[in-house]
Amino acid sequence: MAHPMFVKHQDLLASAVHALESRGYWSPYAESPKAYGENAIEEGSKAFVAYQDAQFYLDQPGVVGRGGGEVSPYGFPLNVSYPKCSPDALIAAGKAAMPAWMKAGPDVRAGVCAEILARFNAHSMEIAHAVIHTTGQAFMMAFQAGGPHAQDRGLEAVALAWREMKQIPYHAVWEKPQGKAPPLRMEKRYTVVPRGVALVVACSTFPTWNGYPGLFASLVTGNAVIVKPHPSAILPLAISVAIARQTLKEAGFDPNLVSLLVDTAEAPITKDVALKPDIRLIDYTGGPDFGQWLEDSARQALVFSEKAGVNCIVIDSTDNYAGLLRNLSFTLCLYSGQMCTTPQTLFLPQDGLLTPEGPVGFDQFCRDLANSIGKFVEDPGRAVEVLGAIQSTATLDRLLGAESLGEVIRPSAALVHPLWPEARIRTPLLLKAPVADSEAWMEERFGPISFVVQTVTTAESIAVAERTIREKGAITFSVYSTNDNVLELAEETSLRAGVALSINLTGGVFVNQSAGFSDFHATGANPAANASLTDAAFVASRFFVVQSRRHIP
Amino acid sequence: MAHPMFVKHQDLLASAVHALESRGYWSPYAESPKAYGENAIEEGSKAFVAYQDAQFYLDQPGVVGRGGGEVSPYGFPLNVSYPKCSPDALIAAGKAAMPAWMKAGPDVRAGVCAEILARFNAHSMEIAHAVIHTTGQAFMMAFQAGGPHAQDRGLEAVALAWREMKQIPYHAVWEKPQGKAPPLRMEKRYTVVPRGVALVVACSTFPTWNGYPGLFASLVTGNAVIVKPHPSAILPLAISVAIARQTLKEAGFDPNLVSLLVDTAEAPITKDVALKPDIRLIDYTGGPDFGQWLEDSARQALVFSEKAGVNCIVIDSTDNYAGLLRNLSFTLCLYSGQMCTTPQTLFLPQDGLLTPEGPVGFDQFCRDLANSIGKFVEDPGRAVEVLGAIQSTATLDRLLGAESLGEVIRPSAALVHPLWPEARIRTPLLLKAPVADSEAWMEERFGPISFVVQTVTTAESIAVAERTIREKGAITFSVYSTNDNVLELAEETSLRAGVALSINLTGGVFVNQSAGFSDFHATGANPAANASLTDAAFVASRFFVVQSRRHIP
Repeated sequence: MAHPMFVKHQDLLASAVHALESRGYWSPYAESPKAYGENAIEEGSKAFVAYQDAQFYLDQPGVVGRGGGEVSPYGFPLNVSYPKCSPDALIAAGKAAMPAWMKAGPDVRAGVCAEILARFNAHSMEIAHAVIHTTGQAFMMAFQAGGPHAQDRGLEAVALAWREMKQIPYHAVWEKPQGKAPPLRMEKRYTVVPRGVALVVACSTFPTWNGYPGLFASLVTGNAVIVKPHPSAILPLAISVAIARQTLKEAGFDPNLVSLLVDTAEAPITKDVALKPDIRLIDYTGGPDFGQWLEDSARQALVFSEKAGVNCIVIDSTDNYAGLLRNLSFTLCLYSGQMCTTPQTLFLPQDGLLTPEGPVGFDQFCRDLANSIGKFVEDPGRAVEVLGAIQSTATLDRLLGAESLGEVIRPSAALVHPLWPEARIRTPLLLKAPVADSEAWMEERFGPISFVVQTVTTAESIAVAERTIREKGAITFSVYSTNDNVLELAEETSLRAGVALSINLTGGVFVNQSAGFSDFHATGANPAANASLTDAAFVASRFFVVQSRRHIP
Repeated sequence: MAHPMFVKHQDLLASAVHALESRGYWSPYAESPKAYGENAIEEGSKAFVAYQDAQFYLDQPGVVGRGGGEVSPYGFPLNVSYPKCSPDALIAAGKAAMPAWMKAGPDVRAGVCAEILARFNAHSMEIAHAVIHTTGQAFMMAFQAGGPHAQDRGLEAVALAWREMKQIPYHAVWEKPQGKAPPLRMEKRYTVVPRGVALVVACSTFPTWNGYPGLFASLVTGNAVIVKPHPSAILPLAISVAIARQTLKEAGFDPNLVSLLVDTAEAPITKDVALKPDIRLIDYTGGPDFGQWLEDSARQALVFSEKAGVNCIVIDSTDNYAGLLRNLSFTLCLYSGQMCTTPQTLFLPQDGLLTPEGPVGFDQFCRDLANSIGKFVEDPGRAVEVLGAIQSTATLDRLLGAESLGEVIRPSAALVHPLWPEARIRTPLLLKAPVADSEAWMEERFGPISFVVQTVTTAESIAVAERTIREKGAITFSVYSTNDNVLELAEETSLRAGVALSINLTGGVFVNQSAGFSDFHATGANPAANASLTDAAFVASRFFVVQSRRHIP
């Protein structure tokens, strides 16, 4: 008999596979807070408050103590203490849990994963508040990107892996004709076998959105998963792990298929754990140096890493200058540039750009963009809902030290949050730099730091953007032009450099946004990431196929 | 308009995808020599003779000289000289050829690849003779495994990659509702982008069967491919490369998408080439040491390696003892154990096995197996058609030095080939060893060297087999038992150790055989190979998806 969770979610999974193949807009998880009930936001807030100053309950093996020291970027400590477990105990428990999970087969695993996601969805508001006070995101982003959009990305991984696994039959009859003799007949069985225990090393800015794809890609293919949150953003993933464990238990499986591994910034454990022979899969989001270390060192594992880079925009001309400025300034303000998709470098020729209102000079563009940002942030109450807070003091320090990197077009200013006066709120820093100053603008500077870089021509802008993307990596590349030749050149460049291209965004879509089931996030083709969320390569090597064959009498 | 080669092969590709999903018996390439015409064998032989003592024509860039020194295992030099090209010239030419190939898209590339395979098929007899006189295989194996079965494996890779690429649409319309406001509408384009230049490092025993999957998996996904044959088995791949280049040219593409890189045993170049930054994919078949070196060193590339290991057989009981002996002795004789699928170690309890005729003691089994092998090889004229010749003097030396590794059950003897008296023909060496003597039987000893290893019980046999497979790797695992518990235990073991299992082969299927479109060859889950031929993981990471998006007005 089919597992009830597969029965429940079978249609959803089929729809998700269809969505992956058509890549139009599709999402099963509502992105409007209203859809979650009248008091949902308030209830989510209460649930979050209940976690504070308390012990987070998680019935995991190998507890050696308790820890956790998250501090809200809005200026208060969370005081949540999590069980600290021995990595070896979690690995051993994960290994012990895998055989039954493997034997359950792709359908049951996909059904249970879809149920976990449905329960994540029901907890979206609670997770949203946990995301706000660990990442610094403002409410709407924390809710949408941390809730339904992250769930989209999780379901996308489930559907993609399910499709791959289902392309292998459970069994087959092989019958080879032998001329006049009776045919050779064999029965063959095929089993999807997991690679081993997986480790998800999550980031501090988008713990769920960047964490769920690896978690679900590994889990649905039969692997046990250890989730290692960034020490400053544990709670959103702790809630997720607790829900996953409860769901697995109710589904009749060992909850140790998903476990939480907590450490602190002072005593990090990821390097030790990542090198353990039984860790066979690692999903990582974070800084390039650690990502490179993982790729170089954790050779016993397959490493999927998203390391970010230097995202570029080429500005040549536009048929909607006001829309361009609105779109760009919002893009730069959104979560204070703390997205791996935020553009850092805007290339503009020294003669400026053509607009329907006539040419706009280079310096005029800089002033216009600064003014447009200014309009966004002049009302602090509205601004904080877009900017959010600066996640880490390291990012704040980087921002404070960045003014010397170029000529300041618009300085970064501190804003006071109406509710939390201690919150780290800063407006974006906009700098101007000559193209020759690549040491300034061509290094990744994570946070609200952007450069308008002066080139001679658009052709130079595109060439320099290509070099930047190839050498430093990029997740996004954006171009503004009314000239078809320029757009074609940009498209060719994006194919050569292996980066997603956005063209003439002047409306309600922003280059930092990536839509589940439609946009591939990163490509794997440039140094920003060695894998894409979420393509076939992201799931196919997480499992093996083992077969047996015997004659049919 | 659709490319004529896609139109021609569209149905074949669809059938191949269907075969992959049903995994019953299917092959579009006839495996009976008769199907190739009355004089096909003779014509193939003539074509082979025409290559001898001559210059092999290949219009490649960067020619720096000529070389090649193949010597037939049947005892004569081929005297074929190939153009030696600068690897950098081949890489540069491959890179230059890729953009147009990429833009042609998955359908056209799959159609052209299918046409290349159709032409390989038409040249099967010529390739068969080239395989005979480089690998030492007897005619029927050289024809079937080197011709139609290798073509099956190539088409399998094409179909699998084509299916993966086709799951991504060329374009999509993304339309996101905005409540009462007009929806956000975007047009998105998706392009399959190749990883880069691929290198196929082929082996000396099955140059086409093991070489085609990587060649076609890389080519159909848009990559240029440099084929580096083993210096002792160049001709079968030189013919293949020449055909591929001619087909590409006729199809309107740059022939430098496929090129041949030749070296000699005295001046090997693979290490240098494998480390070049522009080599982004490597497919390797061969010894474990070099495979491990490639995996460890060629970090700029994805390495797919098949390195072989110690294949095991567990013998517990049988309902067909005569069939077991016939099957096993043929398996051990086939191409003198020079298959990566040939079992090296047969585990049998000290009390022997149960048969319908009563128990057979350990020593009796050894004698019976020796006698069964003896029957196969007593007629040299018939025997050479199964044994073939020993490919390399290194394998012959290994065989000659192996008698001291255990108690000889059946010594290896030299046979004289009726046509070629200088041929290296040897019967298999069968040794007996206690299970404690793992230094003898647990090391890979490539060639016609097998051990009957004495254990206490079948449970011990299975446990030791599992350890062997996990530590040393294995491509095949075979069990003989009439006891369902033993079969279940063997099946569990095969899942844990990640190895394909064959059960009670007493008829016309042999454990060394792997059928295209039905059997996965290797798993990637044990040290014998880090990838399977041919699963989704074998193709999915050979390409990236790069997208662009723009608003629809």
